[in-house]
Amino acid sequence: MSPPTALDVNLVGVTDTSAVPVPDPLTVNGVPAWREKMAKIPTGVAAASNSDMFKSPICYTKPKAKRFERMATFAHSESTDHFSLEAKSRKASTLKTAARYLKTPGLISLGGGLPSPEYFPFEHLDIKVPTAPGFSPEATRESGTVLRAGKHDIQEGTSNYDLEIALNYGQATGAAPLLRFVTEHTEIIHSPPYSDWQCTLTSGSTYAWDTALRVFCERGDYILMEEYTFASAAETAFPLGIKAVGIPMDEEGLIPEKMDEILSNWDVAARGARKPYVLYTIPTGQNPTGATQSAERRHAVYKVAQKHDLIIIEDEPYYFLQMQPYTSGDASPVPPPSTHEEFIKSLVPSFLSMDTDGRVVRLESFSKVISPGSRVGWIVASEQIVERFIRTFEVSSQNPSGIAQITLFKLLDEHWGHSGYLDWLINLRMSYTARRDSLVHACEKHLPREIAHWEAPAAGMFHWVEIDWHKHPGVAAGKTRASIEEEIFLSAVDQGVLLSRGSWFKPDHDTVEEKMFFRATFAAASSEKIDEAISRFADALRVQFGL
Amino acid sequence: MSPPTALDVNLVGVTDTSAVPVPDPLTVNGVPAWREKMAKIPTGVAAASNSDMFKSPICYTKPKAKRFERMATFAHSESTDHFSLEAKSRKASTLKTAARYLKTPGLISLGGGLPSPEYFPFEHLDIKVPTAPGFSPEATRESGTVLRAGKHDIQEGTSNYDLEIALNYGQATGAAPLLRFVTEHTEIIHSPPYSDWQCTLTSGSTYAWDTALRVFCERGDYILMEEYTFASAAETAFPLGIKAVGIPMDEEGLIPEKMDEILSNWDVAARGARKPYVLYTIPTGQNPTGATQSAERRHAVYKVAQKHDLIIIEDEPYYFLQMQPYTSGDASPVPPPSTHEEFIKSLVPSFLSMDTDGRVVRLESFSKVISPGSRVGWIVASEQIVERFIRTFEVSSQNPSGIAQITLFKLLDEHWGHSGYLDWLINLRMSYTARRDSLVHACEKHLPREIAHWEAPAAGMFHWVEIDWHKHPGVAAGKTRASIEEEIFLSAVDQGVLLSRGSWFKPDHDTVEEKMFFRATFAAASSEKIDEAISRFADALRVQFGL
Repeated sequence: MSPPTALDVNLVGVTDTSAVPVPDPLTVNGVPAWREKMAKIPTGVAAASNSDMFKSPICYTKPKAKRFERMATFAHSESTDHFSLEAKSRKASTLKTAARYLKTPGLISLGGGLPSPEYFPFEHLDIKVPTAPGFSPEATRESGTVLRAGKHDIQEGTSNYDLEIALNYGQATGAAPLLRFVTEHTEIIHSPPYSDWQCTLTSGSTYAWDTALRVFCERGDYILMEEYTFASAAETAFPLGIKAVGIPMDEEGLIPEKMDEILSNWDVAARGARKPYVLYTIPTGQNPTGATQSAERRHAVYKVAQKHDLIIIEDEPYYFLQMQPYTSGDASPVPPPSTHEEFIKSLVPSFLSMDTDGRVVRLESFSKVISPGSRVGWIVASEQIVERFIRTFEVSSQNPSGIAQITLFKLLDEHWGHSGYLDWLINLRMSYTARRDSLVHACEKHLPREIAHWEAPAAGMFHWVEIDWHKHPGVAAGKTRASIEEEIFLSAVDQGVLLSRGSWFKPDHDTVEEKMFFRATFAAASSEKIDEAISRFADALRVQFGL
Repeated sequence: MSPPTALDVNLVGVTDTSAVPVPDPLTVNGVPAWREKMAKIPTGVAAASNSDMFKSPICYTKPKAKRFERMATFAHSESTDHFSLEAKSRKASTLKTAARYLKTPGLISLGGGLPSPEYFPFEHLDIKVPTAPGFSPEATRESGTVLRAGKHDIQEGTSNYDLEIALNYGQATGAAPLLRFVTEHTEIIHSPPYSDWQCTLTSGSTYAWDTALRVFCERGDYILMEEYTFASAAETAFPLGIKAVGIPMDEEGLIPEKMDEILSNWDVAARGARKPYVLYTIPTGQNPTGATQSAERRHAVYKVAQKHDLIIIEDEPYYFLQMQPYTSGDASPVPPPSTHEEFIKSLVPSFLSMDTDGRVVRLESFSKVISPGSRVGWIVASEQIVERFIRTFEVSSQNPSGIAQITLFKLLDEHWGHSGYLDWLINLRMSYTARRDSLVHACEKHLPREIAHWEAPAAGMFHWVEIDWHKHPGVAAGKTRASIEEEIFLSAVDQGVLLSRGSWFKPDHDTVEEKMFFRATFAAASSEKIDEAISRFADALRVQFGL
């Protein structure tokens, strides 16, 4: 994974940058010029590639990530290694070792088992997609653009990626042209502060999280999660024999001091487990609470992670569902970002962007911003970590579907480019702002404030409403918190509205739940339906609480 | 997973069929009529479906699969359960439990986290595909058919599956319309002899095999594999702490008596592991040996599996690469099957087709017959087993890419149908026959028979050539078998041909290799290149052996 020869090799590995001019950061507009200077993108069947082929020179002016062997020496726990036995015993494929002979000039290979592309029964694939600035479904139907992926586009010189390649076996990293796009996107948005970061495509973030657990954890381990978290993420861990400790949260998400307290007081004997060293967090528009960690909060969390030598898995499907500031009822809405720079600046900094150590694994997803059905995502982490993921993918998912990869490539890289993609994301931001506002306005209009409390979410798809269950008449009758939560839930269903119960999202089964919440999404229903739904929920609450 | 109401419920669970008329087996031509009688196919977002919705009545005249709890009682080993701790502890998703309330009439759901399809930036997808009987790339370019998947086809009544559904979250089983196709295909080709078999789509067979290991094995276990096997399959198992016992093979693949011997003499103390109960086998066109187990051989293997209560994982990517009988040099080729019935009859029966107990897990793949890049396959097994796979998929791959699923659906179901797909497979059979013949003819023409021996493969992509290494001059000079194999390999590379070394495919590291093999594929190169390549290999052998 050495950097490409097109780079100024003097920059590679340099840490004292006072003597050399620091290259410019990569920007949206700088991409075409930078691509011109690069070595040619690999286009063969299952051609190997990595992010170093696509990162701009400024990356190599930064220090390298810490190695885990070294990190272990300042660990305050019994663990001597962050990788699982499974991850440590993964080796490169035997059959791939033969690939190096393929470079022999004139060689005829009868070695591999790749089918011939003449038997792939797809001649071309056309997709009709929206074009900036319209982007609306109506505009697309009328005036969208049709993008064609042909079988032999590379041979014919019309593209870097074609069906002949996409339909054959591929590399675990994903195809080079799409890997390039996500690498550039990562650099533009997050500019990781160490040099040897890598991206690899994944078959979706759910799969990447399952793999992360296999890479970092052993049966019997605890992991750290937010007190309320995405239920399926916890349910991915449990069957692997992994338990969760819930970290208390406030309106900015997980509380770093509480995390420090839990880790500093970890009692190996009482817990029957070594100290946790994996934190799973959804920093932006957290599911289910809707909380977004501020920059200051993230810095504080990162410091605790350094103190206790944690791996931070930041699961960030909602990062680009950060919305405009909330303005209640009659106030006029905040105008959208007027430039890409302003948009990027408005985004809360990611853990990746402050990761001087290389202890962050960022799970990226197209599910909430393009389509969940693609089952294509990517991760960003240090080369040492990404390499262990790739070894796992090679003998599991292999790589995301080539048909999905080429579809995304045509849209994101060849059609929109980084500029059009950011336009799309800004458009989405405004749509979600309107949706969020509908829901919060409906809450302001309908919900009984004596017992219902909320903060307008700054990102994501979810609104989290706290219910003061101690005021429920059932309490006097000796009913439990859990049974009152169920009663309210069923009463809402009776009124014709489905919300999610807060207790469904509690991963830590050792602690007692004090509060009560319900989660409502504003992602799917129209604003009229949202208003009606919240009005029904208000009716249910009034009936339940005798208001 | 109860059978659909459209079925005659009197047939369900009936084992004495003497009193009721036995329904006709499902045939290619019978599919349309049978579909007419069925309940409507589910078409909602992430709509649940299972194979019972699509199996024909004859399936329910058969007895049910054995349950593993019961199977354990006749196990001759220490194992009391075939499922791993991981598999046993998997539960249905908490969030999915809310789904049952969605049926409440008039309910507005703010419960889920599904994005709205208006934000999926794909209006339609057109694919150009070949049409029977031409099927050639040239014919496709000239006169192929363009199939369109639109965003709202279901709403518009033009299809059972559209982009609105394919691009959203889905079920682990895959989308109902594609699941229906593979279920019908399975019934037509294999007609499993028990009633409660199920299919589920997978994100490719590599992923399905990784999942199988997670479902059935614990760290420290041994599995049974053919003495030579697909190296990556073994390398999927090793990092999970699973070791392989190689079963000796002959020209028909694994030898059941040898397997019985290994299992009957299993020494738990000496091995430091319980008796294996998973057999991984590639019964047809085995990789790397090219061997195909005859029907008799399979019956004998199945009997040993029953005796020792094994799970048989049959990995069958090459099943439809069964070729015409080999005719050497000047003999005239055997004419292709003239009907679908004749074609189906010509196929060697699968383990699934003789699986009266429900102990077979069949891994199915489109990689060798449609496209490896789709990363869509399926498995067939008993409901009890498939359910454990589905629970794993839900928190890992989720489901194969919807974009790949709808592409396959359009081609296989809406365009070709079962009849066109069988035509495609017959066409492929003839192409591979010609390729295999090229390679074997080249061997007959060029290779020195004093030291090189082979059987013409009956299926698959691979030709397996044995080299009588004892005649190598290096033996007298004290060279090892391994170093002679390497010398021959490198000498072939020097001559300009790459073959795979037999030792790469040996999964069992406890036994000593006696013989020497090289694997050559006929899948990728043209017949001229194949002839040239084998001629170069012959040169290398002559140089090496001083002939």
